[in-house]
Amino acid sequence: MTAYPKATRKLRLGFVGGGNGGLVGEWHARGVHLSNRWDIVAGALSSDPVKAKESAKDWFIAPERSYADAVSMAKAEAARPDGIDAVAICTPNHLHHSAAKAFLAAGIDVICDKPLTNEINEAVELVDLQKKTGLVFGVTHPYAAHMMVRQAKAIIARGDIGEVRQVHVEYLQEWVASADGEFSKGALWRQDRAKVGRSSIVGDIGTHAFHLASFVTGLAISEVRADFHTCTPQRPVEDTAFLNLRYGNGAQGTMILTQVAPGNFCGLRLRVFGSTGGLMWDQEKQEYLHLSRFGKAEEVQVRAQPGVMLPEAARMTHLPAGHSEAISDAWGNLYTEFAIAIDARRHGRTLPAGLLDYPTVVDGARGVFFVHATADSHEAGGVWRPCWFTP
Amino acid sequence: MTAYPKATRKLRLGFVGGGNGGLVGEWHARGVHLSNRWDIVAGALSSDPVKAKESAKDWFIAPERSYADAVSMAKAEAARPDGIDAVAICTPNHLHHSAAKAFLAAGIDVICDKPLTNEINEAVELVDLQKKTGLVFGVTHPYAAHMMVRQAKAIIARGDIGEVRQVHVEYLQEWVASADGEFSKGALWRQDRAKVGRSSIVGDIGTHAFHLASFVTGLAISEVRADFHTCTPQRPVEDTAFLNLRYGNGAQGTMILTQVAPGNFCGLRLRVFGSTGGLMWDQEKQEYLHLSRFGKAEEVQVRAQPGVMLPEAARMTHLPAGHSEAISDAWGNLYTEFAIAIDARRHGRTLPAGLLDYPTVVDGARGVFFVHATADSHEAGGVWRPCWFTP
Amino acid sequence: MTAYPKATRKLRLGFVGGGNGGLVGEWHARGVHLSNRWDIVAGALSSDPVKAKESAKDWFIAPERSYADAVSMAKAEAARPDGIDAVAICTPNHLHHSAAKAFLAAGIDVICDKPLTNEINEAVELVDLQKKTGLVFGVTHPYAAHMMVRQAKAIIARGDIGEVRQVHVEYLQEWVASADGEFSKGALWRQDRAKVGRSSIVGDIGTHAFHLASFVTGLAISEVRADFHTCTPQRPVEDTAFLNLRYGNGAQGTMILTQVAPGNFCGLRLRVFGSTGGLMWDQEKQEYLHLSRFGKAEEVQVRAQPGVMLPEAARMTHLPAGHSEAISDAWGNLYTEFAIAIDARRHGRTLPAGLLDYPTVVDGARGVFFVHATADSHEAGGVWRPCWFTP
Amino acid sequence: MTAYPKATRKLRLGFVGGGNGGLVGEWHARGVHLSNRWDIVAGALSSDPVKAKESAKDWFIAPERSYADAVSMAKAEAARPDGIDAVAICTPNHLHHSAAKAFLAAGIDVICDKPLTNEINEAVELVDLQKKTGLVFGVTHPYAAHMMVRQAKAIIARGDIGEVRQVHVEYLQEWVASADGEFSKGALWRQDRAKVGRSSIVGDIGTHAFHLASFVTGLAISEVRADFHTCTPQRPVEDTAFLNLRYGNGAQGTMILTQVAPGNFCGLRLRVFGSTGGLMWDQEKQEYLHLSRFGKAEEVQVRAQPGVMLPEAARMTHLPAGHSEAISDAWGNLYTEFAIAIDARRHGRTLPAGLLDYPTVVDGARGVFFVHATADSHEAGGVWRPCWFTP
Repeated sequence: MTAYPKATRKLRLGFVGGGNGGLVGEWHARGVHLSNRWDIVAGALSSDPVKAKESAKDWFIAPERSYADAVSMAKAEAARPDGIDAVAICTPNHLHHSAAKAFLAAGIDVICDKPLTNEINEAVELVDLQKKTGLVFGVTHPYAAHMMVRQAKAIIARGDIGEVRQVHVEYLQEWVASADGEFSKGALWRQDRAKVGRSSIVGDIGTHAFHLASFVTGLAISEVRADFHTCTPQRPVEDTAFLNLRYGNGAQGTMILTQVAPGNFCGLRLRVFGSTGGLMWDQEKQEYLHLSRFGKAEEVQVRAQPGVMLPEAARMTHLPAGHSEAISDAWGNLYTEFAIAIDARRHGRTLPAGLLDYPTVVDGARGVFFVHATADSHEAGGVWRPCWFTP
Repeated sequence: MTAYPKATRKLRLGFVGGGNGGLVGEWHARGVHLSNRWDIVAGALSSDPVKAKESAKDWFIAPERSYADAVSMAKAEAARPDGIDAVAICTPNHLHHSAAKAFLAAGIDVICDKPLTNEINEAVELVDLQKKTGLVFGVTHPYAAHMMVRQAKAIIARGDIGEVRQVHVEYLQEWVASADGEFSKGALWRQDRAKVGRSSIVGDIGTHAFHLASFVTGLAISEVRADFHTCTPQRPVEDTAFLNLRYGNGAQGTMILTQVAPGNFCGLRLRVFGSTGGLMWDQEKQEYLHLSRFGKAEEVQVRAQPGVMLPEAARMTHLPAGHSEAISDAWGNLYTEFAIAIDARRHGRTLPAGLLDYPTVVDGARGVFFVHATADSHEAGGVWRPCWFTP
Repeated sequence: MTAYPKATRKLRLGFVGGGNGGLVGEWHARGVHLSNRWDIVAGALSSDPVKAKESAKDWFIAPERSYADAVSMAKAEAARPDGIDAVAICTPNHLHHSAAKAFLAAGIDVICDKPLTNEINEAVELVDLQKKTGLVFGVTHPYAAHMMVRQAKAIIARGDIGEVRQVHVEYLQEWVASADGEFSKGALWRQDRAKVGRSSIVGDIGTHAFHLASFVTGLAISEVRADFHTCTPQRPVEDTAFLNLRYGNGAQGTMILTQVAPGNFCGLRLRVFGSTGGLMWDQEKQEYLHLSRFGKAEEVQVRAQPGVMLPEAARMTHLPAGHSEAISDAWGNLYTEFAIAIDARRHGRTLPAGLLDYPTVVDGARGVFFVHATADSHEAGGVWRPCWFTP
Repeated sequence: MTAYPKATRKLRLGFVGGGNGGLVGEWHARGVHLSNRWDIVAGALSSDPVKAKESAKDWFIAPERSYADAVSMAKAEAARPDGIDAVAICTPNHLHHSAAKAFLAAGIDVICDKPLTNEINEAVELVDLQKKTGLVFGVTHPYAAHMMVRQAKAIIARGDIGEVRQVHVEYLQEWVASADGEFSKGALWRQDRAKVGRSSIVGDIGTHAFHLASFVTGLAISEVRADFHTCTPQRPVEDTAFLNLRYGNGAQGTMILTQVAPGNFCGLRLRVFGSTGGLMWDQEKQEYLHLSRFGKAEEVQVRAQPGVMLPEAARMTHLPAGHSEAISDAWGNLYTEFAIAIDARRHGRTLPAGLLDYPTVVDGARGVFFVHATADSHEAGGVWRPCWFTP
């Protein structure tokens, strides 16, 4: 049912980071597998050489293509006739920049987890390098690759809810609150200011919420004002942020981010109110888009429902309505779009305008600017700060 | 099933305002009727004498007890041997103060709609008068009289979610956005700054949200910071407010208020996150209370469910679980509690501590302080302002 | 907001049964109070004289109008110049017939709980008596008096879902399963075949489901086939029934009735599927009607939503959308319709066709025929039986 | 996070049927890809040679391993040193038997779509052949491979809802009703009695519902009684079936199957009521399991929620709670279990008891018996028929 163009061949993919049974690698890998457009053939899967080797075996990577680090991997793979077409970078945040730089330098297309970098100058450098090299540079905000998010974007773009006037987005989790217990191992490095950068919470989940709000509305987010809170007293860094946002068209918004809200797992919810209607999408119930228009009953649009999907969404249908496509499928769409873009670039083909809509290095850089703006605002007592990056 | 004490006799109630088929009077009246503890026997139901007379007839009030205004009604009823036991004030806001004052002066117990007054000094004066006279003075925040809100309060008081750390409350409506259309008549006076006081939106629905948050958590709300917005450009006053709140125990919170959110009718939703659990209540699905605790599945408590209700809630059971009690029933509870309090005062009986939990003149005054604090904050560019009133 | 005609005076109502804090009386009384069209002035509230007297006092009934039984009450009230206009009969089922007969004979309008009678000949006799006397005879199926059920009926009548082809209705409760515990007192008499008639479960909740299905679809239910089950082994009577139904137009249906389904309180749910659409209504979430049409997103209609309600439903709006009207409000509608009918009859006025749509003695008799048909079918091994009564 | 044993190598898989962009192949393929335990290396993807070739190219299958039919494929692959380890059979139903037989004869493990066969004797023959050869024979009921279905099964097995007394399962779809329109191509062959066997609706979706009910409860389904209906008059075969079921332990149940219910896509819902509790699972909201126990609030268990999952379910965790695993992930689990079983068999390893719980050829045969029993019952006017197969 999907209307994506077919692959001409399977592309060769390498991973930097992602090994050891970690969650980030698992997510990327599920997308890679589902897209069925990639073979994973190389990796620097861990900074620990033993774990790197073990993980490579688990991933069915040949031992000679399991590397100690990103730089040597970039060099070696670039030299092979069957070298990787692209690299997926899933390391901790502070290592994204150097890895991405190495692969761009080697002429290899890059797929990078978010936040793009910890520092602004690093982000800008990657934007410049991508521009100079012309390579594909994708950033993994998977929510925007779910069919119903594309549907939401298309609905707003058509004007079905009128002029956008309010945007409310929240991302609520609980896991940091329980970090002394059994579910907590992943929480530890996020308590170290040196590693998390300017804001743990905004970098981790705020960048997703920020991207989603901007992606769906098609609007720049011009200014932000932020209060950070540490609701779990024993924590050294913020676990909660309340933000107010100003959008490029004059719309106003809020953003609530917290990782200490018991009963919430990945509660990313978006509500957009316009002059004639509103819509709501909840990541945890991702199959449904709620559309309201004045004087009409609320519509509950179901993914892939016949007669309801707009073309921008319909092309990523894999399963009929009633059988959920979820986060694995969204990752699959993301890796499909990356593959199509890279396949086209490598074969010198031009794609129809508007066929792909994946997050780029510029979107990644916007996330980095956003993290810094929120931290600046908070430190200045909650004053308004500009937060939008225009390359 | 209710465990409220029985009435010794039906009390006599008068209304100031509420006639003409208006919504406010209908709500009060439904509570009065359902409680079955009152006879409505007098009224100054409208400032328009013709409408006052017509409304009195519709309400089965004898013509000689239909009055032109609150002051003459207070005087005349106080002089009758069968005069009213209490008055319900449902006028527009700016008339609350003078009416309440007149009835307090006449020794008649008062039930008043919110916001208590438009001005702070008026509110303080009513607090003082109530104290001096010892009369019952109830304010009508009906949400707090729903069984599941009482259950929520009792759960938090027992410590079931630990120390309260975050409180998020929102009240979303759509009707102001459509005010040029057919649903809009009620919107007109709310566009007149002279009538609405410092904030249309905060006075109208913000006071409910404020009372609910404080009532359920048992916490003072010490400071507020506010941004007002006018999302419908043609409106002369704010239709939206985004607030940040600081609670007395150090908890942090947000409040989103808007009347221009298409698809939202009376979307009052409360979420409280504590150190070990969280809870959620949605006014539009008022029968359900969602309780989460770390490491346990979410509990969905249903109103009146056997084995689940705590005593503070259980005493207001009228119907078994599965048959909803809604806003009419909550108004009925409110008027039941008012009746019990007034009946006891008039007969010199002392009620068991904790039997009643209705909003008082002090709660009403707190709402007025809150409205002013939010307007002060907004006008000063969103700075923090103290907002709690302690008599 | 309601468009019902105004009352010319309050009508005088008497109760037979309903005292002692029982649930049935509470429900009727809430409807009576909310409608604000009745004064309760007489009663034979209990067969136990002490309880009758106590209950009368609680209900503010004058001692001389508290009667020992229905027959003496009918006679005495008929003789008073200020005698009751109507009687509400809330006794156990086997006493409905004799009470109703007495009041009809005395020229007093009758409102009777369901099932109308235990025996078919009794039901037919009441139908005949009503016809002969021309008195109003209402039967209390309150679900059909909820605004969204009226909306559902109007939607189908307009043809919005095409020809009705399938009707699925279920009514699931849990309370009988726990009848050895604290919630069980009401369960005891329902275990006595002599008192419950041919079927405990069908008489108690099946008649509601049957009426609802026929009311909303506008269709006769021509045949039934039934299996009764006793899922709680220690019970002497059936607690569960699975039915198949044939509708007058050839549509097919199912009905699941059980009172031993843990987690279900009053789970009355109706789904109707037509040739071009379908709809769903759940009594426990009574504010919402779900309407689906081929090739369109599901509509969630909210009670009283501007622009959405059809006239047949709109006239019973009391509160705006977002503030639920629930079972108390539906009982209020029922007693409002009874009052309008009785007021008109007593004053010789003719009402506009289609203004009222309350269940009559014929609907009550259909319920009795249905109970017998299901029991006949079950006892014969689940064969098809005709079940529709045409007077 | 998954606790499945690691693969020792990727297994080689062939497909019979599934090409041409059909839905069945897509589903199987998504499971194969996500499991990351298989390489698809051979296929007879279509009976149309042109389409077979094209599909093979799309699936990256070498041309020389694209076969014209199942028999020649079985023979050729068995002869290769690098021949397939297993075959996945996704043809129309009537071709399952001959294909499965050919691969069993060739010593190749079999994975077969449902219903296993159209005829009873064919099913029994496959059961016998599997027994004789000792090969792995899996049948693809993917719902039973979702983590929350495993959780439901484990909860019942632990006795958390007491003795099972009622089982209600329904599978509602809409697509056949719209078969003259644009969404209908798949509907055509299902209207041909020669191809669909005894029952179109029971074979297509009833076998899933039947397997699910038996799988979760751990009970045999001993007898059935069925009414088939054709609700869309122009259809030549049944599109609806209402069933009553008797379970091995005396529990009673219902099953509603229809493909002409507007607004329903893949509405497979299971409710089990026991002596002390009940549970509910809805395939369209597959992440949630609703568990009720007397006197306690309903629990909403979320997939992968810390502290809540039982070991039988926990081992198939891939993603943390809040990011849905859906039908693709369930297919992934299914193909993971098949791979583990086949890997173990081929390497002579014994797996821990209870590690795997995939549907076998015996489960498949039970589905075939069930289809026949329902058709027998219907044709005999709805009499009870035995329906359980014991090998």
